[in-house]
Amino acid sequence: MSEKFWMTGLVPATFTPMHQDGSLNLAQTAPIVERLVKHKIQSIFVCGTTGEGSSLSTAERKATLEAYVTASKGRIAAVAHVGHTALADACDLAAHAQSIGAAAVSALPPFYMRPANVSELVDNMAAIAAAAPKLPFYYYHIPGLSGVTLDMVEFLKQAGTRIPNLAGIKYTAPTLYEFQSCAALEGGRYNMVFGVDEMLLSGIASGAVGAVGSTYNLAPALYHQIQAAFAQGDHAQAQRLQLLSAHMVEAVKKFRPLPALKSMMKLTGIDCGPTRLPLVAMRDAEFNALSKNLDALGFPQWMA
Amino acid sequence: MSEKFWMTGLVPATFTPMHQDGSLNLAQTAPIVERLVKHKIQSIFVCGTTGEGSSLSTAERKATLEAYVTASKGRIAAVAHVGHTALADACDLAAHAQSIGAAAVSALPPFYMRPANVSELVDNMAAIAAAAPKLPFYYYHIPGLSGVTLDMVEFLKQAGTRIPNLAGIKYTAPTLYEFQSCAALEGGRYNMVFGVDEMLLSGIASGAVGAVGSTYNLAPALYHQIQAAFAQGDHAQAQRLQLLSAHMVEAVKKFRPLPALKSMMKLTGIDCGPTRLPLVAMRDAEFNALSKNLDALGFPQWMA
Amino acid sequence: MSEKFWMTGLVPATFTPMHQDGSLNLAQTAPIVERLVKHKIQSIFVCGTTGEGSSLSTAERKATLEAYVTASKGRIAAVAHVGHTALADACDLAAHAQSIGAAAVSALPPFYMRPANVSELVDNMAAIAAAAPKLPFYYYHIPGLSGVTLDMVEFLKQAGTRIPNLAGIKYTAPTLYEFQSCAALEGGRYNMVFGVDEMLLSGIASGAVGAVGSTYNLAPALYHQIQAAFAQGDHAQAQRLQLLSAHMVEAVKKFRPLPALKSMMKLTGIDCGPTRLPLVAMRDAEFNALSKNLDALGFPQWMA
Amino acid sequence: MSEKFWMTGLVPATFTPMHQDGSLNLAQTAPIVERLVKHKIQSIFVCGTTGEGSSLSTAERKATLEAYVTASKGRIAAVAHVGHTALADACDLAAHAQSIGAAAVSALPPFYMRPANVSELVDNMAAIAAAAPKLPFYYYHIPGLSGVTLDMVEFLKQAGTRIPNLAGIKYTAPTLYEFQSCAALEGGRYNMVFGVDEMLLSGIASGAVGAVGSTYNLAPALYHQIQAAFAQGDHAQAQRLQLLSAHMVEAVKKFRPLPALKSMMKLTGIDCGPTRLPLVAMRDAEFNALSKNLDALGFPQWMA
Repeated sequence: MSEKFWMTGLVPATFTPMHQDGSLNLAQTAPIVERLVKHKIQSIFVCGTTGEGSSLSTAERKATLEAYVTASKGRIAAVAHVGHTALADACDLAAHAQSIGAAAVSALPPFYMRPANVSELVDNMAAIAAAAPKLPFYYYHIPGLSGVTLDMVEFLKQAGTRIPNLAGIKYTAPTLYEFQSCAALEGGRYNMVFGVDEMLLSGIASGAVGAVGSTYNLAPALYHQIQAAFAQGDHAQAQRLQLLSAHMVEAVKKFRPLPALKSMMKLTGIDCGPTRLPLVAMRDAEFNALSKNLDALGFPQWMA
Repeated sequence: MSEKFWMTGLVPATFTPMHQDGSLNLAQTAPIVERLVKHKIQSIFVCGTTGEGSSLSTAERKATLEAYVTASKGRIAAVAHVGHTALADACDLAAHAQSIGAAAVSALPPFYMRPANVSELVDNMAAIAAAAPKLPFYYYHIPGLSGVTLDMVEFLKQAGTRIPNLAGIKYTAPTLYEFQSCAALEGGRYNMVFGVDEMLLSGIASGAVGAVGSTYNLAPALYHQIQAAFAQGDHAQAQRLQLLSAHMVEAVKKFRPLPALKSMMKLTGIDCGPTRLPLVAMRDAEFNALSKNLDALGFPQWMA
Repeated sequence: MSEKFWMTGLVPATFTPMHQDGSLNLAQTAPIVERLVKHKIQSIFVCGTTGEGSSLSTAERKATLEAYVTASKGRIAAVAHVGHTALADACDLAAHAQSIGAAAVSALPPFYMRPANVSELVDNMAAIAAAAPKLPFYYYHIPGLSGVTLDMVEFLKQAGTRIPNLAGIKYTAPTLYEFQSCAALEGGRYNMVFGVDEMLLSGIASGAVGAVGSTYNLAPALYHQIQAAFAQGDHAQAQRLQLLSAHMVEAVKKFRPLPALKSMMKLTGIDCGPTRLPLVAMRDAEFNALSKNLDALGFPQWMA
Repeated sequence: MSEKFWMTGLVPATFTPMHQDGSLNLAQTAPIVERLVKHKIQSIFVCGTTGEGSSLSTAERKATLEAYVTASKGRIAAVAHVGHTALADACDLAAHAQSIGAAAVSALPPFYMRPANVSELVDNMAAIAAAAPKLPFYYYHIPGLSGVTLDMVEFLKQAGTRIPNLAGIKYTAPTLYEFQSCAALEGGRYNMVFGVDEMLLSGIASGAVGAVGSTYNLAPALYHQIQAAFAQGDHAQAQRLQLLSAHMVEAVKKFRPLPALKSMMKLTGIDCGPTRLPLVAMRDAEFNALSKNLDALGFPQWMA
């Protein structure tokens, strides 16, 4: 790594745009990126959970990453999610990411056969990180979905000596005490990126400098104002804005969350199409009901 | 309720002091209370998880509550945890709490047979709250231990029309977005009390005005300083102090947490004795190892 | 123990009869026992999960056990479930069971604070077993409800040297390979009693000689015929009858199972009243719907 | 489907043989198949959990299936596991399986994004089954690994009208009452295949006519004798032999089970090599310890 990359500020976990038939619609990456540039976004997380990475073929994941990198024209750094149940596929994706100019690589643990202890997890992640040795590597911790609930402080301690390009953790769990312990390790060596949008304020208060999430695509200005209000010590305002995020997520959770969130991209003026199975796409009636609820919250003003 | 009681600030979840043979050692409630008064504590939570309420007989729970109320001499409000798998016992404990001058009542859900939906939970809590109609009632949400993982916003909505003395929730879970939604409900009608000590800073940042926890017995000054630093906008200092709490909890989790925490009361000068089965009391060698780790953290200075 | 007691054959886990207001209706234990005597039942399991033990006060549990022992007039052995989150209460119940002529004692693990390993579990069970030293002791393994998922072979190995009156395990889980390993331990030293009615045939095939369950109250003849068909090598008939049990349980699981099962006692001619909270009693409309489904299965003929 | 295929008898879930470096060693499929032919095996399950399907690339899964089909020379029917988190990959694998002469197709549910209800599951499985319309389709139910715990009776009811080539379920769970209900549905329309080797006897007693499992590779004669003993009504002998299976599995579970089982193929004279990450291959010392335990059980005689 010639220079240090850190994920800071808001890092939208981008959607993978699709046509109505579920095929990739990568032309849409251009308006997505332009919108994020306008909102001063510096990094994106591609083909993760929000991007339906596990529902795409390896070839589709490469094509999607390439589209985002191309559309970015150097203005936004792309972090490539490369996790896969098949280690060789993960390594292939990592090497590809490095070859086409991604800024960093991140990987889920294997999630069918799961590592039983930290040592097994490190073995897996070391192999993936070694396939893109020039890029910083982030472990993707999301125990609620991956089923891997290992101790992250212990992971960093063991991985730190085994993975030369270990940069940090994309940490998608509400347990901020562990997040904080990770961030404090070895003088703040690791870039801990917080992944619970609806708790961003808690994350910032605990010292998070970067945050990855799906709703940062939808309402970046809202979250920027949360950061600003907090930095200025206006805690009441920060809470008021964070509450709006919590209410938005509540509204979304009345439905299958990811199909709902992907549909909501239409409200920003960019149609990202439906989700793929197993995520049944939102029906029109559902979308209308959700939109109405979001209107009542005054949410759409943030989605411009 | 003649006047409004709210749990604000730090609310230690008190230990139940025992002799070496496991029998109650209620004389120790006096020095415990004096120490907390010195630290300007205004409320305590008696016979909850920290107080080993589920390991005590109903008679012992009453005696423990009485001892704390007596020792308080009106200086500290006692919130009585009265949850029990047998509803009649819970009601008996609630009525007793009201009769001897407790300030409020709180109850776990039944945790062997568990409510399957919010409506069943409300039925249960309504019966308990009605047994102490003059006291404010707090539901005790701790899904990691109780196994009851229901939606708390929905609980408040339904319970609000059924339980006249519903005051709020003792909320022991890291999901602060739900906490915040609960706190904002109906113009802030409910007293939401946060229960994750090692995330107090996140809780405050999200608007928590009260916090119940076991480590507030041990190091109240540390947490007071977190609150003060945050209020003054000194976020870096607040994080530094909160990190100390996270490290302390990390040290404790190398052992069975509650036996470790109860042992640590000795470091404050007040021996609370061992825990009861099923919590095997800490052995001396373990206590010495833990003490050494706490020394290295500089923790004991906060325990004076 | 002057003579060896083993639970063999069908062991109904009895309901605790209640009046409409939820108070005990112990006069009904007499017709319950007479019916079971008529069906050649030799043992019953009192105040367990089916008997709503965790919803009763300690005094009520004693009264219920006494009523069953009295009604039995020596014809049916009563196994007293004495498990309690408070160890002293469990011991009190165990001593009482011994004093009034129960045949054996059984205990759940503590289920709020839970043993973290086999050694802690043995410590707990040893204390309870020692309170009724003249009675055989059965650990009650029901991981789906207690949340205690420890290795039962290991439990027997460790407990065997610590609990002189250890008799076996009431084993309520479908994992019959572990059941079989337990049963084979030390030359078949332990009385393993199988607790999944809807899999009785699988249990018998794996060598179970005793089975505890709620539906043995309702349709003992059905299960006796399963045993008989299997013993005679008529596997097809055994499967056909077991399927009826599976279908009955399927019908019951459309509702809250225990309220449904308790209601069904009416179909045997003995009203056991409603369940207590947290188990909301079945409504009439639900009972009628369930009855209709049971009629369609031809189930009621077995309930005479 | 020109003629009806059912999985009956023992269906080994084959290992995917690998070189020491983890690359495929497909030449070994020949001796594996010859050994199974000798043991009168009629079907095998390829690239499932035992075959590390999720750790292989799509190309490797095709190559492995082809090798098994070729080696079988029509003597053994190959069931191809084609489940994949990416639906298009699953469909591609299904179409390939049909094109090269597999006898049937089976699929796990998506296991990162998971179906939330039976309807979503049916949608997914219908798409996969439609990609190999001439082959019978089996849903692969293994809730302990996939995290998909939906009602299988309901699945068959809904899927039966949506998936013309639905043949049944590979059912890997100990809940035999549900298995039996599924098997009885619509006059026995579905081929329910039981997947818990260490409970085979319970499965047979409940009416299973087919069983898929990893240990059927290792000791087919043992399980054949269990079937024979049961068919002859020699229940004691059947239990004695099944206990040996339970003890073998107990011995294996002291280690990571799948690496241990794959290593044990050496004891049958056929080296299948190591497992791939995330399953760390067994170390020599571990293998020696395991072998010693198996010797003590008298297990190796069954592995000839």
